[in-house]
Amino acid sequence: MMNWYFQSGKESDVVLDTKITISRNIEGFPFVPKLKDDQAKEIIDRLEQSSVIANYNLKMLKLSDMDELTRQSLVEKYMLNSKYINGNLENKAILMNEDENICIVLNEKDHLKIQVFASGLELESSLNLAMELEEKLDKELKFAYNNKYGYLTSSPTNLGTGLRASVIAHLPALSKTQNLSKIFEAVNDLGMNIKDIYGEGVRIKGNIYQISNKQTLGIREKDIIKNLKAIVDKVIEQERLARKILAKNQVELEDDVYRSYGILTNSRKITNEEMVSLMSDVRLGVDMGIIKEITDLKVNKLDILSRSANLQKYFGENLDVFDRNIKRAELVKKIINE
Amino acid sequence: MMNWYFQSGKESDVVLDTKITISRNIEGFPFVPKLKDDQAKEIIDRLEQSSVIANYNLKMLKLSDMDELTRQSLVEKYMLNSKYINGNLENKAILMNEDENICIVLNEKDHLKIQVFASGLELESSLNLAMELEEKLDKELKFAYNNKYGYLTSSPTNLGTGLRASVIAHLPALSKTQNLSKIFEAVNDLGMNIKDIYGEGVRIKGNIYQISNKQTLGIREKDIIKNLKAIVDKVIEQERLARKILAKNQVELEDDVYRSYGILTNSRKITNEEMVSLMSDVRLGVDMGIIKEITDLKVNKLDILSRSANLQKYFGENLDVFDRNIKRAELVKKIINE
Repeated sequence: MMNWYFQSGKESDVVLDTKITISRNIEGFPFVPKLKDDQAKEIIDRLEQSSVIANYNLKMLKLSDMDELTRQSLVEKYMLNSKYINGNLENKAILMNEDENICIVLNEKDHLKIQVFASGLELESSLNLAMELEEKLDKELKFAYNNKYGYLTSSPTNLGTGLRASVIAHLPALSKTQNLSKIFEAVNDLGMNIKDIYGEGVRIKGNIYQISNKQTLGIREKDIIKNLKAIVDKVIEQERLARKILAKNQVELEDDVYRSYGILTNSRKITNEEMVSLMSDVRLGVDMGIIKEITDLKVNKLDILSRSANLQKYFGENLDVFDRNIKRAELVKKIINE
Repeated sequence: MMNWYFQSGKESDVVLDTKITISRNIEGFPFVPKLKDDQAKEIIDRLEQSSVIANYNLKMLKLSDMDELTRQSLVEKYMLNSKYINGNLENKAILMNEDENICIVLNEKDHLKIQVFASGLELESSLNLAMELEEKLDKELKFAYNNKYGYLTSSPTNLGTGLRASVIAHLPALSKTQNLSKIFEAVNDLGMNIKDIYGEGVRIKGNIYQISNKQTLGIREKDIIKNLKAIVDKVIEQERLARKILAKNQVELEDDVYRSYGILTNSRKITNEEMVSLMSDVRLGVDMGIIKEITDLKVNKLDILSRSANLQKYFGENLDVFDRNIKRAELVKKIINE
């Protein structure tokens, strides 16, 4: 089994992955904050009977049936909101396929959060799949819709299409050449959001940014995607340009990425923060053809599996911070030598 | 050919090498500061005719016949004083064998500086060889001697025996456990000198110290050696004890030494300062049996050959600082992969 997130897709030297989210609510039920336990259960029941389960090889997984690490691992994979894994877990469930590229979350912020993931830049195809799922579910469930506002969502920022399209981009060269603020400005001016996925002002320097649409209302889905794609294409172009500038100082660049590679592969304990920062250099080195010792696949594996919950799931045990740091270094050696 | 300084001797986990220096002046000549050119040449001529040249396979090398890099390389190997390689080089010469463990310097501070080097802790045997050389030379040259003071030297600190015995010790664990100041105090109290070979207050942290005798007057050579040996044995014991303490925190220690190993072997440019500091960790790792990827011999080679002049001699070209840093990283790869 090769989950989508281990693979490399289009423009993967800059775009790590694409995520399409469509938020929907079922007619006749109150929004989640006012949803009663029996209503939440009824929504789960209705989904259980949906034809999409068989047609897309989905599995219904109740959050109360998962162990804590599995729930946290889904948060780390950006499938669940971290707030969602608290509270009454009986009312919460996901529908997911084996590849994990489809993940429908029930009773999170809205009744349904239809998510489609893909490696690399795959906005159109991901949107198509998400909309196909949405249509089929709509026929069976009937989603709350208003002629003026379009699809109704618990948060007004999602009203209309209920569509959030986002791309995760690795922008180390724009960062190293001090060009990020210009990019931030341009992306915002063009009506899109851009943010550091590790949070603003955080010490972690992974150089990984999420670019997503702001507007959901009064615009067609295809246009949202088209606009986002145009902007992401520009960002990719700028990042590649910045890499060419870095490449002019070949020794400096090689020294940077190989020092990080050297520390990564030789350390005996490594914090999550340091891992993220080292991986940015190593990914850049691999993507620029400098580091030849490891493949893209291994970079992705290291990236995903080194996150705290995934790491513990990988080793099949609950670990405190001290032991996680040791096991993280062990994981690196295992994957490098695979 | 395997020069003495690439080898590992006794107690080599702590003691890198031993050096015995006997300073002598020839009767009937003024001390070096007042020595005229023709007198300096006469001293060189007399040595040229000495029987020790043939008996110990020595070669006479005039400093004026060497290129600048070779002279600097001798300074880096602690055979010549850095001040000695300036001024009129016609009056200066050394007598050296192929192993380079015997190096007699002419007209430096005194007419003769008889030096014997050995890997590891070799005080007695080195003293014996140095005294054997001294006796043979004395018969032929007749050294200035005074019944009250013993052998006369240009600096009063060498009067008497003219003997300086020193040991180079690597004390990373005493440094990491913050025990160095105690050691410094004890060594000084026991009448010996101890100093950082990279100079006091210098930023370089190579954890390499020279321990040598203070007293040269009113004491027999054998007793100087015996006292120094007793103190060095204590220092070795303390350093080994400190290593045992470090070893209790195995992960921390392995992490430390392997990170340095990772940077050393992966960097693409490396300054002399950083090299010295990384090599201290790597040497500790190898000596404690943690780092198994390289041998003692390679550690010694890296240590010696990475010094600026040696590095340039190794690559057979004059290099500026920028290129030296690149070539230093290249040297590491070459030697590691030998």
